[in-house]
Amino acid sequence: MMRAGARQYVVARPLYSEETFAEDHDKVYRQRKSIRDHVKQYFTCDAKRAKTAALSLLPVIGWLRIYRIKEWLLSDIVSGVSTGLVAVLQGLAYCLLASLPPWYGLFSAFFPVIAYFFLGTSRHISVGPFPVLCLMIGSVVTRLVPDEGPAFNITAFEGLTRDEQRVLVASSVTFLAGIMQLLMGALQVGFVVMYMSDTLVSGFTTAAAIHILVSQLKFVLGLQVPGLSGPLSLIYTLEIIFQKITSTNVCDLVISLVIMGLVFFVKELNDRYKSKLPVPIPIEVIMTVIACGVSYAFDFRTRYGIDVVGLIPKGYEAPVAPNMQIFQETTMDAFPMAIVGFAVAFSVAKVYSVKHDYTIDGNQELIAFGVSNIFGASFKSFAASTALSRSAVQESTGGKTQVAGLLSALIVMIVTLAIGFLLEPLPKSVLGAVVIVNLKGMLMQFRDVPYLWRRDKPDCVVWLGTCIGAILLGLDIGLAVGLGVELISVVLRVQFPRCSVLANIQGTDIYKDRKDYIRIYEPEGVKIFRIPSPIFFANIEFLRSKLVEAIGFNPLRVLRKRNKALRKIRKLLKKGDLQWTSTGFLNTSYEPIKDSEDESNKEELDLPTDFKDLPARIDWSAELPANMLVPRVDLHSLILDFAAVSFLDISALKGLRAALKELIRVEVDVYIVACDPYILEKLHDCCFFDDEVQPSIFFLTLHDAMLHILEKHPEATESKSDYDKIITTVTVHHPGGSLRSRDKNALNPETKF
Amino acid sequence: MMRAGARQYVVARPLYSEETFAEDHDKVYRQRKSIRDHVKQYFTCDAKRAKTAALSLLPVIGWLRIYRIKEWLLSDIVSGVSTGLVAVLQGLAYCLLASLPPWYGLFSAFFPVIAYFFLGTSRHISVGPFPVLCLMIGSVVTRLVPDEGPAFNITAFEGLTRDEQRVLVASSVTFLAGIMQLLMGALQVGFVVMYMSDTLVSGFTTAAAIHILVSQLKFVLGLQVPGLSGPLSLIYTLEIIFQKITSTNVCDLVISLVIMGLVFFVKELNDRYKSKLPVPIPIEVIMTVIACGVSYAFDFRTRYGIDVVGLIPKGYEAPVAPNMQIFQETTMDAFPMAIVGFAVAFSVAKVYSVKHDYTIDGNQELIAFGVSNIFGASFKSFAASTALSRSAVQESTGGKTQVAGLLSALIVMIVTLAIGFLLEPLPKSVLGAVVIVNLKGMLMQFRDVPYLWRRDKPDCVVWLGTCIGAILLGLDIGLAVGLGVELISVVLRVQFPRCSVLANIQGTDIYKDRKDYIRIYEPEGVKIFRIPSPIFFANIEFLRSKLVEAIGFNPLRVLRKRNKALRKIRKLLKKGDLQWTSTGFLNTSYEPIKDSEDESNKEELDLPTDFKDLPARIDWSAELPANMLVPRVDLHSLILDFAAVSFLDISALKGLRAALKELIRVEVDVYIVACDPYILEKLHDCCFFDDEVQPSIFFLTLHDAMLHILEKHPEATESKSDYDKIITTVTVHHPGGSLRSRDKNALNPETKF
Repeated sequence: MMRAGARQYVVARPLYSEETFAEDHDKVYRQRKSIRDHVKQYFTCDAKRAKTAALSLLPVIGWLRIYRIKEWLLSDIVSGVSTGLVAVLQGLAYCLLASLPPWYGLFSAFFPVIAYFFLGTSRHISVGPFPVLCLMIGSVVTRLVPDEGPAFNITAFEGLTRDEQRVLVASSVTFLAGIMQLLMGALQVGFVVMYMSDTLVSGFTTAAAIHILVSQLKFVLGLQVPGLSGPLSLIYTLEIIFQKITSTNVCDLVISLVIMGLVFFVKELNDRYKSKLPVPIPIEVIMTVIACGVSYAFDFRTRYGIDVVGLIPKGYEAPVAPNMQIFQETTMDAFPMAIVGFAVAFSVAKVYSVKHDYTIDGNQELIAFGVSNIFGASFKSFAASTALSRSAVQESTGGKTQVAGLLSALIVMIVTLAIGFLLEPLPKSVLGAVVIVNLKGMLMQFRDVPYLWRRDKPDCVVWLGTCIGAILLGLDIGLAVGLGVELISVVLRVQFPRCSVLANIQGTDIYKDRKDYIRIYEPEGVKIFRIPSPIFFANIEFLRSKLVEAIGFNPLRVLRKRNKALRKIRKLLKKGDLQWTSTGFLNTSYEPIKDSEDESNKEELDLPTDFKDLPARIDWSAELPANMLVPRVDLHSLILDFAAVSFLDISALKGLRAALKELIRVEVDVYIVACDPYILEKLHDCCFFDDEVQPSIFFLTLHDAMLHILEKHPEATESKSDYDKIITTVTVHHPGGSLRSRDKNALNPETKF
Repeated sequence: MMRAGARQYVVARPLYSEETFAEDHDKVYRQRKSIRDHVKQYFTCDAKRAKTAALSLLPVIGWLRIYRIKEWLLSDIVSGVSTGLVAVLQGLAYCLLASLPPWYGLFSAFFPVIAYFFLGTSRHISVGPFPVLCLMIGSVVTRLVPDEGPAFNITAFEGLTRDEQRVLVASSVTFLAGIMQLLMGALQVGFVVMYMSDTLVSGFTTAAAIHILVSQLKFVLGLQVPGLSGPLSLIYTLEIIFQKITSTNVCDLVISLVIMGLVFFVKELNDRYKSKLPVPIPIEVIMTVIACGVSYAFDFRTRYGIDVVGLIPKGYEAPVAPNMQIFQETTMDAFPMAIVGFAVAFSVAKVYSVKHDYTIDGNQELIAFGVSNIFGASFKSFAASTALSRSAVQESTGGKTQVAGLLSALIVMIVTLAIGFLLEPLPKSVLGAVVIVNLKGMLMQFRDVPYLWRRDKPDCVVWLGTCIGAILLGLDIGLAVGLGVELISVVLRVQFPRCSVLANIQGTDIYKDRKDYIRIYEPEGVKIFRIPSPIFFANIEFLRSKLVEAIGFNPLRVLRKRNKALRKIRKLLKKGDLQWTSTGFLNTSYEPIKDSEDESNKEELDLPTDFKDLPARIDWSAELPANMLVPRVDLHSLILDFAAVSFLDISALKGLRAALKELIRVEVDVYIVACDPYILEKLHDCCFFDDEVQPSIFFLTLHDAMLHILEKHPEATESKSDYDKIITTVTVHHPGGSLRSRDKNALNPETKF
């Protein structure tokens, strides 16, 4: 059984309950900060703190001071120009998702970047339109200003064209999302982004990809399909597309397929020869330029009835104030936008910060995006985050700091101010095709499903719940559903833990699941119940029922039966039908006792058994007089293993206390072992203890409690020759610390480390 | 330091890692049921299962067979009559909350009771109207059919009076809630009620009490106030009441105050002399009868303009089909009603089931309430649950089974069919006063707040969040807010655990928080990090940052610095500026080495350090050639204490693996101890292990791992004379199991249990 050459070790130490341990070992008194101290500290202000605060609010000061012009500027310029070209194209394309005139996308690739340059802590992300966010804006826009039928009843809409109304809606909702982000940043609640787990984001973006795909179909097919929003809008949109499929514009379709095929192919090449190419081939930009030229040359618009980008006005528009009425209507839409926009940007920024080894600050990022959105919205741009593909361009072409971002904004500005008209003949189907090809990465996430199913079923359920919810119910409600499923999955994992009954591995101080091992020893009358999770309102009842299952009887029921029996015995003694002799009770009358239910004072049955007016305590395991039956309790001690209990809430406290009392009242000694010091402290604070439940039930380890029990109940051990079973474990009554020296000598002289 | 007379104990056993333990101890192979097995088992059918299913679906069969006519029937009759009288009164009163004509309350106290008689598992609750639920119905009713202005655009409303429209809305939403309950019961998801923790229910019902109080003010003051619904409706209602306060009907106010005073006083008496009174004085019924008589005699209605109950039609109305259009409009209202109605009834039923020692079945209760509501709604009754006060009457007057409930329904039927007209002169202000007096218990729950604040702050936040949310936003949204806050509070507790660094209590195998004890020993180069909570997506990053803080360096950064240094060394060796001698590197050229950044192959820096083309491994703690600087790592071993880790999710798995790899790559040995066997199994299933992260890092206990480390790194221990420190702990290389016998002799001859 024991391997040859196994290393042995010996531990000799006092048997410790929490109380005796505390007596032997001096504790350091550590003062905890009260809430008042925290508040005080938070609002304390001195020159140093003010400087740090200013620096953290304007990170640009920090990194611009250490800007290495010689080494970084060239890279930043190259990167800025490349990113700028992509930003122009994506700005136009993603505008289609937002159901806005294309040139507003150029604004979105300009204004937010400027604000982020000063406030952002990430050096590598390219701020600007993000397809999922654009789609969410599109859904609000088409809800408030539908393609068909009247717009929402908003005063400010009067005298505006449909597109102007839409731009007002988009900029207002962006403004609102910006305010929310700014508030969250100011309140330092950036940690909420932690709830956007990888699984959730993967499921959500996959659903978004499906939505984007469907929304672009109309451009690729050259159909007129009204933008829909709300639950099931995806299904309705598909329905309309299939109804109209016969009027597909073949020219649009051919252009799209050619572009998709070419772009897809070149992108694969870029991926494969990544290490050999200095920069990835900017195939989308090339195709766009070619498409513009061809469309202009052959006048696609009039000849084939193709929908083109159309008039792009030169220059910027006057700032606009957000509309309060729209705020009211779109609060529920702005919140998920604020969360999604930030979460995506933060996760991308995080990847680059780890890669390039600098720190980013979540709360400052929230502030940066909040201000960017507020600033941008004032100039009619819509909600900004980052697109993975564009950030990848900025980083891979050598961008070192947000100077590259600033330069990309400059390129966008040049297009807006000077050469925008060149893009006017560009067919919308080309933009749609570019958007669709870029979905590849997001759609590939479907591969996560079988992987997650094999690894972790609850995570897979979260993925599917988020994805299906977001596809069917829309992105905003879907996100809420996903978050709900995710939180519940965490609670469920904690709620239904696998409890187990432990027993001793013979000859050691190790305790394992009784069912798992062949040679395992459980002393008679002792049960060890392991609670493998925190205890709180949602699982306290479950754990109590599992405990009753493990010990094999319901203590409350036993207590009531005992108290009923006591009542009867008292009655019989009074009537003289029963007499007390030194050997026990003696039935003097042999009438059968009627089992009438005594309804009065039901509550009293739950009190501790009270022997005070009886001649002696009653031995419940012996036979009772007058054929009374009370369930036998074979248990004298119960150990609760609290090693994995990381917190207790108030419901758990009450439930635990009730359970302990029920057990103590049927004369079962309960011990709690390996309890976290914070929990023990909390129990003391919450007046958990009284005459029945005492602090002395806490022991340091399972083995300490077990030895304490075996010593207290020698009858249990002697009968089973437990001495042989827990062989290497010996309890020694000892006057002082002299065991120490004897031990040293007693053990093998070769003792060594 | 050691108490005199302390009991000592000795453990001598092999040093176990999880692997060696598994070798030594045979495990029982336990086959887990797959999902398929569960499904198969669930759908298996045989005669016995069918019988059990039938019995559990119709509990009435079970308890009617054992009905003790002689003992129980009389009690049931007494209880039934008393409860019936209360039910009539409450039916009328709570109807005011639902904004419906009063006699529909009588239907609600009749139909659901009949259905529950057959299907319910609780023997003591009195099924029927519940004030909070009535209020929720009232909010839907006034939203769809407001007092002022046009009703909602629903086709079925045409040709109906306002009250008929309202009854249709109430019965439809009840029907829908019933369907939801039935579905939840069929899907066996009765456990969701666990999320309605005591704290949440307390906060929610307190808010409901405030709503009820405000809604009854108009009756007590005799004012005409339109019923409002939606967020902030409470504030608006109060505003209107204060505006109209000058037109208070003084007679109404006086009647209400008198009734409230008397009822309150007698109820206090009932409470105080509970044990002496055979049944509580039915003061509400008495006052109602008196008020009816007085109102009739003095013709309050015409003389003082008092609002009375008015015409009560005799008999029942024809059944009505629920309306689909209303279903669509009220889905979001029906769901919280289904949940609240069930949760309240279940918690009351639970109290009585524990008191009278029988079992109730949550899922069957859901089915029972579902059917009751569907059945009741067909006959124009509204959503049923139970009122605490009525159930208390039924139980305290001696009700033994639902036969009492059936009899109370009979009383209600008599009133409906025969003597309803007697109640017609009853002033509504009397009903309002009775409702308000009964709120005392719910409003007293405000006392929970300071109690919770002292005991458990997160619980207090949940209470306040639920209560304030429900007061301001309405009961339905408030409940959602409360549930959200509660779930987040659980997640937050798990998310930000208090990590600690442990160290050895000298001379024992006990490890405690290093900061807590004065005499505590931490071997050099070893850190023990305790993770005090489950690890999942929301806290993995937090734990990793805490770990970095605890060990004092960022392993990834160190790894990159080392790899950069290696690159430089290779370059120098190639150029001949550096030479390898047996004692180490020798700088041959003394040019300062430029610290140029090598941008290529950033990814390679994260790989394990590779010494393959170098003459020898580099000792990173020694001085490096060419003045290269790499952060010193003083740590050789890290132990992660997993005792409190009750689960891991997939994000945690990935994060943990990345963290382990980073540490292993900077030559820190990582050990994981006290890991739950299920988690270990999961790690194996999820391909957690590879060449770097190996299963041999798992040890059984902290002490096993520590001894293993001390043996592996003798230099650390010898230098510090650790032999004296961990004095009673000795590792013995030993060929076999003969230590056993020697131990026995070696120890005190008095050894005994």
